[in-house]
Amino acid sequence: MRVLYHWPLDPASRTIRLALTEKQLEAEFRLSPPWKPDPEISRLAPGAASPVLIHQGSHGRLVASGTQAILEYLEEEGGERLLPGAAQDRAEVRRLWRWCEDAFADVNASLLTERITMWIRRDREPDSAALRTGAHALRGRITFLNALAGQTAFLAGRNLSLVDLSAAAHLSCYDYFGDVQWDLVPELRVWYAQVKSRPSFRPLLADRVEGARPARHYADLDF
Amino acid sequence: MRVLYHWPLDPASRTIRLALTEKQLEAEFRLSPPWKPDPEISRLAPGAASPVLIHQGSHGRLVASGTQAILEYLEEEGGERLLPGAAQDRAEVRRLWRWCEDAFADVNASLLTERITMWIRRDREPDSAALRTGAHALRGRITFLNALAGQTAFLAGRNLSLVDLSAAAHLSCYDYFGDVQWDLVPELRVWYAQVKSRPSFRPLLADRVEGARPARHYADLDF
Repeated sequence: MRVLYHWPLDPASRTIRLALTEKQLEAEFRLSPPWKPDPEISRLAPGAASPVLIHQGSHGRLVASGTQAILEYLEEEGGERLLPGAAQDRAEVRRLWRWCEDAFADVNASLLTERITMWIRRDREPDSAALRTGAHALRGRITFLNALAGQTAFLAGRNLSLVDLSAAAHLSCYDYFGDVQWDLVPELRVWYAQVKSRPSFRPLLADRVEGARPARHYADLDF
Repeated sequence: MRVLYHWPLDPASRTIRLALTEKQLEAEFRLSPPWKPDPEISRLAPGAASPVLIHQGSHGRLVASGTQAILEYLEEEGGERLLPGAAQDRAEVRRLWRWCEDAFADVNASLLTERITMWIRRDREPDSAALRTGAHALRGRITFLNALAGQTAFLAGRNLSLVDLSAAAHLSCYDYFGDVQWDLVPELRVWYAQVKSRPSFRPLLADRVEGARPARHYADLDF
Protein backbone atom coordinates (compact mmCIF):
# COMPACT_ATOMS: atom_id res chain seq x y z
CA MET A 1 0.00 0.00 0.00
CA ARG A 2 1.37 3.40 -1.05
CA VAL A 3 0.53 6.61 0.80
CA LEU A 4 1.54 10.00 -0.57
CA TYR A 5 1.60 12.97 1.76
CA HIS A 6 1.14 16.00 -0.44
CA TRP A 7 -0.13 19.56 -0.62
CA PRO A 8 -2.25 20.71 -3.59
CA LEU A 9 -0.26 23.83 -4.51
CA ASP A 10 3.19 22.36 -3.94
CA PRO A 11 4.84 21.77 -7.36
CA ALA A 12 6.91 18.84 -6.06
CA SER A 13 3.79 17.11 -4.69
CA ARG A 14 2.00 17.67 -8.00
CA THR A 15 4.89 16.14 -9.94
CA ILE A 16 4.56 12.95 -7.88
CA ARG A 17 0.76 12.84 -8.22
CA LEU A 18 1.07 13.11 -12.00
CA ALA A 19 3.75 10.40 -12.10
CA LEU A 20 1.71 7.98 -9.99
CA THR A 21 -1.31 8.38 -12.25
CA GLU A 22 0.65 8.24 -15.50
CA LYS A 23 2.35 5.06 -14.30
CA GLN A 24 -0.98 3.67 -13.06
CA LEU A 25 0.48 2.98 -9.65
CA GLU A 26 -2.16 3.09 -6.93
CA ALA A 27 -1.76 5.34 -3.93
CA GLU A 28 -3.78 6.90 -1.17
CA PHE A 29 -3.37 10.68 -1.02
CA ARG A 30 -3.21 12.49 2.32
CA LEU A 31 -3.02 16.25 2.75
CA SER A 32 0.02 17.64 4.53
CA PRO A 33 0.80 21.36 4.25
CA PRO A 34 4.56 22.05 4.07
CA TRP A 35 4.34 24.45 7.01
CA LYS A 36 2.50 21.96 9.23
CA PRO A 37 3.44 18.43 8.18
CA ASP A 38 1.25 15.50 9.18
CA PRO A 39 2.56 14.03 12.48
CA GLU A 40 3.09 10.71 10.70
CA ILE A 41 5.75 12.40 8.52
CA SER A 42 7.61 13.78 11.53
CA ARG A 43 7.59 10.26 13.00
CA LEU A 44 8.78 8.38 9.90
CA ALA A 45 10.84 10.99 8.06
CA PRO A 46 12.04 13.61 10.59
CA GLY A 47 12.70 16.95 8.99
CA ALA A 48 10.92 16.07 5.74
CA ALA A 49 8.01 18.03 4.28
CA SER A 50 5.59 16.97 1.56
CA PRO A 51 5.93 15.14 -0.74
CA VAL A 52 6.66 12.02 1.26
CA LEU A 53 5.85 8.57 -0.08
CA ILE A 54 5.38 5.64 2.25
CA HIS A 55 5.13 2.23 0.69
CA GLN A 56 4.29 -0.68 2.93
CA GLY A 57 4.99 -3.74 0.86
CA SER A 58 5.91 -7.39 1.23
CA HIS A 59 9.58 -6.36 1.64
CA GLY A 60 8.94 -3.97 4.52
CA ARG A 61 8.35 -0.24 4.63
CA LEU A 62 9.89 2.22 2.22
CA VAL A 63 9.94 5.91 3.13
CA ALA A 64 11.04 8.34 0.42
CA SER A 65 10.94 12.10 0.46
CA GLY A 66 11.70 14.67 -2.21
CA THR A 67 11.10 14.36 -5.93
CA GLN A 68 14.45 12.79 -6.84
CA ALA A 69 14.21 9.87 -4.39
CA ILE A 70 10.48 9.30 -4.98
CA LEU A 71 10.52 9.50 -8.78
CA GLU A 72 13.59 7.31 -9.23
CA TYR A 73 11.95 4.78 -6.92
CA LEU A 74 8.66 4.83 -8.82
CA GLU A 75 10.57 4.40 -12.08
CA GLU A 76 12.26 1.33 -10.63
CA GLU A 77 8.85 0.03 -9.56
CA GLY A 78 7.60 -0.22 -13.12
CA GLY A 79 4.52 1.07 -14.94
CA GLU A 80 4.64 3.41 -17.93
CA ARG A 81 8.22 4.72 -18.38
CA LEU A 82 8.84 8.36 -17.59
CA LEU A 83 12.60 8.03 -18.13
CA PRO A 84 13.46 6.87 -21.67
CA GLY A 85 15.09 3.53 -22.37
CA ALA A 86 18.22 4.78 -24.16
CA ALA A 87 21.04 5.99 -21.88
CA GLN A 88 21.63 9.20 -23.87
CA ASP A 89 17.94 10.14 -23.74
CA ARG A 90 17.74 9.25 -20.07
CA ALA A 91 20.71 11.53 -19.33
CA GLU A 92 18.99 14.36 -21.21
CA VAL A 93 15.70 13.86 -19.35
CA ARG A 94 17.50 13.84 -16.00
CA ARG A 95 19.38 17.01 -16.96
CA LEU A 96 16.24 18.91 -18.00
CA TRP A 97 14.18 17.57 -15.12
CA ARG A 98 16.83 18.88 -12.72
CA TRP A 99 16.92 22.13 -14.68
CA CYS A 100 13.18 22.56 -14.07
CA GLU A 101 13.51 21.94 -10.35
CA ASP A 102 16.48 24.27 -9.95
CA ALA A 103 15.18 26.97 -12.28
CA PHE A 104 11.74 27.10 -10.69
CA ALA A 105 13.07 26.95 -7.12
CA ASP A 106 13.39 30.72 -6.95
CA VAL A 107 9.96 31.28 -8.50
CA ASN A 108 8.55 29.02 -5.78
CA ALA A 109 10.46 30.87 -3.08
CA SER A 110 9.28 34.28 -4.28
CA LEU A 111 6.13 34.45 -6.43
CA LEU A 112 4.40 31.27 -5.25
CA THR A 113 5.27 31.78 -1.59
CA GLU A 114 3.88 35.33 -1.72
CA ARG A 115 0.65 34.19 -3.40
CA ILE A 116 0.19 31.56 -0.70
CA THR A 117 0.91 34.17 1.94
CA MET A 118 -1.60 36.60 0.40
CA TRP A 119 -4.47 34.19 -0.09
CA ILE A 120 -4.03 31.17 2.12
CA ARG A 121 -1.72 31.64 5.09
CA ARG A 122 -2.34 35.37 5.65
CA ASP A 123 0.29 35.35 8.38
CA ARG A 124 2.11 38.45 7.13
CA GLU A 125 1.90 41.17 4.49
CA PRO A 126 2.96 39.99 1.02
CA ASP A 127 6.33 41.30 -0.13
CA SER A 128 5.81 43.19 -3.36
CA ALA A 129 9.52 43.10 -4.25
CA ALA A 130 9.46 39.29 -4.04
CA LEU A 131 6.36 39.22 -6.25
CA ARG A 132 8.14 41.32 -8.88
CA THR A 133 11.37 39.28 -8.68
CA GLY A 134 9.41 36.05 -9.02
CA ALA A 135 7.33 37.30 -11.95
CA HIS A 136 10.50 38.37 -13.75
CA ALA A 137 12.21 35.01 -13.09
CA LEU A 138 9.11 33.15 -14.29
CA ARG A 139 9.13 35.05 -17.61
CA GLY A 140 12.74 33.96 -18.18
CA ARG A 141 11.96 30.31 -17.40
CA ILE A 142 8.90 30.08 -19.64
CA THR A 143 10.81 31.70 -22.49
CA PHE A 144 13.42 28.92 -22.26
CA LEU A 145 10.71 26.22 -22.10
CA ASN A 146 8.90 27.80 -25.04
CA ALA A 147 11.99 27.17 -27.18
CA LEU A 148 12.04 23.51 -26.11
CA ALA A 149 8.31 23.14 -26.72
CA GLY A 150 8.67 24.30 -30.31
CA GLN A 151 11.03 21.43 -31.18
CA THR A 152 9.21 18.18 -30.41
CA ALA A 153 5.81 17.04 -29.14
CA PHE A 154 7.07 16.90 -25.58
CA LEU A 155 9.75 18.93 -23.84
CA ALA A 156 12.47 16.26 -24.03
CA GLY A 157 11.49 14.41 -27.17
CA ARG A 158 8.61 12.54 -28.71
CA ASN A 159 7.43 10.91 -25.50
CA LEU A 160 6.06 12.20 -22.26
CA SER A 161 8.79 12.26 -19.59
CA LEU A 162 9.55 13.53 -16.11
CA VAL A 163 10.54 16.85 -17.70
CA ASP A 164 6.94 17.42 -18.86
CA LEU A 165 5.51 16.39 -15.51
CA SER A 166 7.89 18.61 -13.55
CA ALA A 167 7.40 21.65 -15.81
CA ALA A 168 3.60 21.23 -15.94
CA ALA A 169 3.39 20.70 -12.17
CA HIS A 170 5.23 23.95 -11.53
CA LEU A 171 3.37 25.99 -14.14
CA SER A 172 -0.01 24.69 -12.97
CA CYS A 173 0.63 26.05 -9.46
CA TYR A 174 1.53 29.48 -10.82
CA ASP A 175 -1.43 29.29 -13.21
CA TYR A 176 -3.78 28.65 -10.28
CA PHE A 177 -3.06 32.27 -9.32
CA GLY A 178 -3.14 33.49 -12.94
CA ASP A 179 0.60 34.21 -12.94
CA VAL A 180 1.62 32.60 -16.25
CA GLN A 181 1.59 34.98 -19.21
CA TRP A 182 0.58 32.40 -21.80
CA ASP A 183 0.34 35.01 -24.58
CA LEU A 184 4.13 35.43 -24.42
CA VAL A 185 4.83 31.73 -25.08
CA PRO A 186 2.60 30.32 -27.85
CA GLU A 187 4.48 27.02 -28.30
CA LEU A 188 4.51 26.37 -24.58
CA ARG A 189 0.78 27.09 -24.47
CA VAL A 190 0.11 24.41 -27.10
CA TRP A 191 2.24 21.95 -25.12
CA TYR A 192 0.48 22.86 -21.85
CA ALA A 193 -2.98 22.46 -23.41
CA GLN A 194 -1.97 18.98 -24.49
CA VAL A 195 -0.55 17.96 -21.10
CA LYS A 196 -3.47 19.58 -19.29
CA SER A 197 -5.97 17.44 -21.21
CA ARG A 198 -4.40 14.17 -20.05
CA PRO A 199 -6.50 12.18 -17.55
CA SER A 200 -3.66 12.41 -15.01
CA PHE A 201 -4.17 16.19 -14.86
CA ARG A 202 -7.85 16.08 -13.94
CA PRO A 203 -7.40 15.80 -10.16
CA LEU A 204 -5.02 18.80 -10.23
CA LEU A 205 -7.54 20.90 -12.14
CA ALA A 206 -10.17 20.00 -9.56
CA ASP A 207 -7.97 21.13 -6.64
CA ARG A 208 -9.40 23.97 -4.58
CA VAL A 209 -7.51 25.46 -1.67
CA GLU A 210 -9.39 27.31 1.07
CA GLY A 211 -8.99 31.05 0.78
CA ALA A 212 -7.86 31.12 -2.86
CA ARG A 213 -10.15 30.60 -5.81
CA PRO A 214 -8.22 29.61 -8.93
CA ALA A 215 -7.89 32.00 -11.89
CA ARG A 216 -10.86 31.77 -14.26
CA HIS A 217 -9.08 29.88 -17.00
CA TYR A 218 -7.28 27.54 -14.58
CA ALA A 219 -9.30 24.40 -15.37
CA ASP A 220 -10.20 25.31 -18.98
CA LEU A 221 -8.67 22.99 -21.55
CA ASP A 222 -9.09 25.79 -24.08
CA PHE A 223 -7.48 28.81 -22.41
CA MET B 1 36.26 6.60 -24.19
CA ARG B 2 34.99 8.89 -21.42
CA VAL B 3 35.98 12.55 -21.20
CA LEU B 4 35.08 14.66 -18.16
CA TYR B 5 35.18 18.42 -18.45
CA HIS B 6 35.72 19.69 -14.92
CA TRP B 7 37.11 22.50 -12.83
CA PRO B 8 39.24 21.72 -9.74
CA LEU B 9 37.35 23.88 -7.23
CA ASP B 10 33.86 23.11 -8.49
CA PRO B 11 32.15 20.79 -5.95
CA ALA B 12 29.98 19.16 -8.63
CA SER B 13 33.05 18.35 -10.77
CA ARG B 14 34.83 16.91 -7.72
CA THR B 15 31.86 14.68 -6.93
CA ILE B 16 32.10 13.14 -10.41
CA ARG B 17 35.87 12.74 -10.24
CA LEU B 18 35.53 10.87 -6.95
CA ALA B 19 32.75 8.68 -8.33
CA LEU B 20 34.72 7.76 -11.46
CA THR B 21 37.74 6.71 -9.39
CA GLU B 22 35.72 4.86 -6.74
CA LYS B 23 33.93 2.96 -9.50
CA GLN B 24 37.22 2.35 -11.34
CA LEU B 25 35.77 3.73 -14.55
CA GLU B 26 38.43 5.23 -16.75
CA ALA B 27 38.16 8.78 -18.01
CA GLU B 28 40.26 11.54 -19.44
CA PHE B 29 40.01 14.78 -17.47
CA ARG B 30 39.94 18.15 -19.24
CA LEU B 31 39.91 21.52 -17.51
CA SER B 32 36.94 23.78 -18.18
CA PRO B 33 36.31 26.74 -15.87
CA PRO B 34 32.57 27.36 -15.29
CA TRP B 35 32.92 30.99 -16.41
CA LYS B 36 34.70 30.05 -19.65
CA PRO B 37 33.61 26.59 -20.73
CA ASP B 38 35.69 24.63 -23.22
CA PRO B 39 34.36 25.30 -26.77
CA GLU B 40 33.69 21.57 -27.13
CA ILE B 41 31.07 21.86 -24.35
CA SER B 42 29.31 24.73 -26.07
CA ARG B 43 29.19 22.64 -29.22
CA LEU B 44 27.92 19.38 -27.69
CA ALA B 45 25.94 20.62 -24.69
CA PRO B 46 24.87 24.23 -25.32
CA GLY B 47 24.30 26.14 -22.11
CA ALA B 48 26.02 23.55 -19.93
CA ALA B 49 28.98 24.26 -17.67
CA SER B 50 31.32 21.77 -16.02
CA PRO B 51 30.88 19.00 -15.12
CA VAL B 52 30.05 17.55 -18.52
CA LEU B 53 30.71 13.91 -19.32
CA ILE B 54 31.09 12.75 -22.89
CA HIS B 55 31.21 9.04 -23.48
CA GLN B 56 31.96 7.82 -26.96
CA GLY B 57 31.13 4.14 -26.93
CA SER B 58 30.06 1.38 -29.26
CA HIS B 59 26.45 2.60 -28.99
CA GLY B 60 27.21 6.15 -30.05
CA ARG B 61 27.94 9.29 -28.09
CA LEU B 62 26.48 10.05 -24.70
CA VAL B 63 26.58 13.63 -23.41
CA ALA B 64 25.53 14.18 -19.80
CA SER B 65 25.78 17.33 -17.74
CA GLY B 66 25.08 18.00 -14.10
CA THR B 67 25.62 15.65 -11.18
CA GLN B 68 22.21 13.98 -11.27
CA ALA B 69 22.38 12.90 -14.92
CA ILE B 70 26.06 11.96 -14.79
CA LEU B 71 26.01 10.01 -11.53
CA GLU B 72 22.84 8.05 -12.33
CA TYR B 73 24.41 7.20 -15.67
CA LEU B 74 27.68 6.05 -14.11
CA GLU B 75 25.71 3.96 -11.61
CA GLU B 76 23.93 2.26 -14.50
CA GLU B 77 27.30 1.65 -16.15
CA GLY B 78 28.51 -0.59 -13.35
CA GLY B 79 31.60 -0.65 -11.14
CA GLU B 80 31.52 -0.37 -7.37
CA ARG B 81 27.99 0.62 -6.22
CA LEU B 82 27.52 4.11 -4.85
CA LEU B 83 23.75 3.67 -4.54
CA PRO B 84 22.81 0.77 -2.25
CA GLY B 85 21.04 -2.33 -3.48
CA ALA B 86 17.96 -2.16 -1.27
CA ALA B 87 15.21 0.21 -2.46
CA GLN B 88 14.71 1.79 0.98
CA ASP B 89 18.43 2.50 1.36
CA ARG B 90 18.64 3.80 -2.20
CA ALA B 91 15.77 6.22 -1.50
CA GLU B 92 17.57 7.46 1.61
CA VAL B 93 20.85 7.96 -0.25
CA ARG B 94 19.10 9.87 -3.03
CA ARG B 95 17.31 12.05 -0.45
CA LEU B 96 20.51 12.92 1.44
CA TRP B 97 22.56 13.32 -1.73
CA ARG B 98 20.00 15.85 -2.96
CA TRP B 99 19.99 17.46 0.48
CA CYS B 100 23.76 18.02 0.16
CA GLU B 101 23.45 19.59 -3.27
CA ASP B 102 20.57 21.86 -2.27
CA ALA B 103 21.96 22.75 1.16
CA PHE B 104 25.42 23.62 -0.14
CA ALA B 105 24.11 25.53 -3.17
CA ASP B 106 23.92 28.78 -1.23
CA VAL B 107 27.37 28.25 0.34
CA ASN B 108 28.72 27.83 -3.20
CA ALA B 109 26.90 30.94 -4.38
CA SER B 110 28.21 33.06 -1.51
CA LEU B 111 31.33 31.90 0.34
CA LEU B 112 32.96 29.83 -2.43
CA THR B 113 32.15 32.34 -5.17
CA GLU B 114 33.67 35.14 -3.10
CA ARG B 115 36.84 33.14 -2.38
CA ILE B 116 37.21 32.44 -6.08
CA THR B 117 36.63 36.12 -6.81
CA MET B 118 39.22 37.16 -4.22
CA TRP B 119 42.00 34.79 -5.16
CA ILE B 120 41.47 33.53 -8.68
CA ARG B 121 39.24 35.66 -10.85
CA ARG B 122 39.98 39.04 -9.24
CA ASP B 123 37.38 40.64 -11.50
CA ARG B 124 35.65 42.61 -8.73
CA GLU B 125 35.93 43.38 -5.03
CA PRO B 126 34.79 40.52 -2.80
CA ASP B 127 31.45 41.09 -1.09
CA SER B 128 32.00 40.84 2.66
CA ALA B 129 28.28 40.42 3.37
CA ALA B 130 28.20 37.36 1.08
CA LEU B 131 31.27 35.96 2.85
CA ARG B 132 29.53 36.31 6.23
CA THR B 133 26.24 34.85 4.96
CA GLY B 134 28.09 31.91 3.42
CA ALA B 135 30.17 31.23 6.53
CA HIS B 136 27.01 31.23 8.65
CA ALA B 137 25.20 28.88 6.26
CA LEU B 138 28.21 26.55 6.19
CA ARG B 139 28.22 26.29 9.99
CA GLY B 140 24.58 25.20 9.90
CA ARG B 141 25.21 22.58 7.23
CA ILE B 142 28.24 21.02 8.91
CA THR B 143 26.35 20.84 12.22
CA PHE B 144 23.66 18.77 10.50
CA LEU B 145 26.25 16.52 8.84
CA ASN B 146 28.09 16.12 12.14
CA ALA B 147 24.96 14.52 13.62
CA LEU B 148 24.78 12.10 10.68
CA ALA B 149 28.50 11.31 10.94
CA GLY B 150 28.11 10.29 14.57
CA GLN B 151 25.65 7.51 13.73
CA THR B 152 27.35 5.16 11.29
CA ALA B 153 30.73 4.78 9.56
CA PHE B 154 29.52 6.70 6.53
CA LEU B 155 26.93 9.45 6.24
CA ALA B 156 24.13 7.23 4.93
CA GLY B 157 24.98 3.91 6.52
CA ARG B 158 27.77 1.39 6.72
CA ASN B 159 28.93 1.77 3.14
CA LEU B 160 30.39 4.61 1.13
CA SER B 161 27.69 6.23 -1.01
CA LEU B 162 27.02 9.25 -3.20
CA VAL B 163 26.14 11.17 -0.02
CA ASP B 164 29.73 10.85 1.22
CA LEU B 165 31.17 11.83 -2.17
CA SER B 166 28.90 14.84 -2.52
CA ALA B 167 29.48 16.09 1.04
CA ALA B 168 33.25 15.53 0.86
CA ALA B 169 33.51 17.17 -2.56
CA HIS B 170 31.77 20.31 -1.26
CA LEU B 171 33.68 20.46 2.02
CA SER B 172 37.02 19.91 0.29
CA CYS B 173 36.49 23.02 -1.86
CA TYR B 174 35.70 25.16 1.19
CA ASP B 175 38.61 23.53 3.03
CA TYR B 176 40.98 24.55 0.22
CA PHE B 177 40.39 28.11 1.44
CA GLY B 178 40.47 27.11 5.12
CA ASP B 179 36.77 27.86 5.56
CA VAL B 180 35.65 24.72 7.42
CA GLN B 181 35.74 25.06 11.20
CA TRP B 182 36.60 21.43 11.92
CA ASP B 183 36.90 22.05 15.67
CA LEU B 184 33.13 22.63 15.80
CA VAL B 185 32.30 19.21 14.32
CA PRO B 186 34.44 16.41 15.82
CA GLU B 187 32.44 13.49 14.37
CA LEU B 188 32.43 15.02 10.93
CA ARG B 189 36.19 15.54 11.20
CA VAL B 190 36.71 11.82 11.89
CA TRP B 191 34.52 10.97 8.89
CA TYR B 192 36.35 13.46 6.66
CA ALA B 193 39.77 12.14 7.70
CA GLN B 194 38.62 8.68 6.68
CA VAL B 195 37.21 9.80 3.30
CA LYS B 196 40.21 12.02 2.67
CA SER B 197 42.60 9.10 3.05
CA ARG B 198 40.93 7.07 0.28
CA PRO B 199 42.99 6.74 -2.91
CA SER B 200 40.18 8.44 -4.88
CA PHE B 201 40.85 11.63 -2.90
CA ARG B 202 44.54 11.92 -3.76
CA PRO B 203 44.12 13.81 -7.06
CA LEU B 204 41.85 16.35 -5.30
CA LEU B 205 44.41 16.94 -2.57
CA ALA B 206 47.04 17.53 -5.25
CA ASP B 207 44.91 20.17 -7.03
CA ARG B 208 46.49 23.62 -7.17
CA VAL B 209 44.70 26.55 -8.72
CA GLU B 210 46.65 29.53 -10.00
CA GLY B 211 46.41 32.50 -7.66
CA ALA B 212 45.24 30.59 -4.61
CA ARG B 213 47.48 28.43 -2.47
CA PRO B 214 45.45 25.94 -0.40
CA ALA B 215 45.18 26.28 3.38
CA ARG B 216 48.12 24.66 5.20
CA HIS B 217 46.21 21.63 6.46
CA TYR B 218 44.37 21.10 3.15
CA ALA B 219 46.25 17.98 2.04
CA ASP B 220 47.13 16.70 5.54
CA LEU B 221 45.51 13.40 6.39
CA ASP B 222 45.95 14.32 10.05
CA PHE B 223 44.49 17.82 10.35
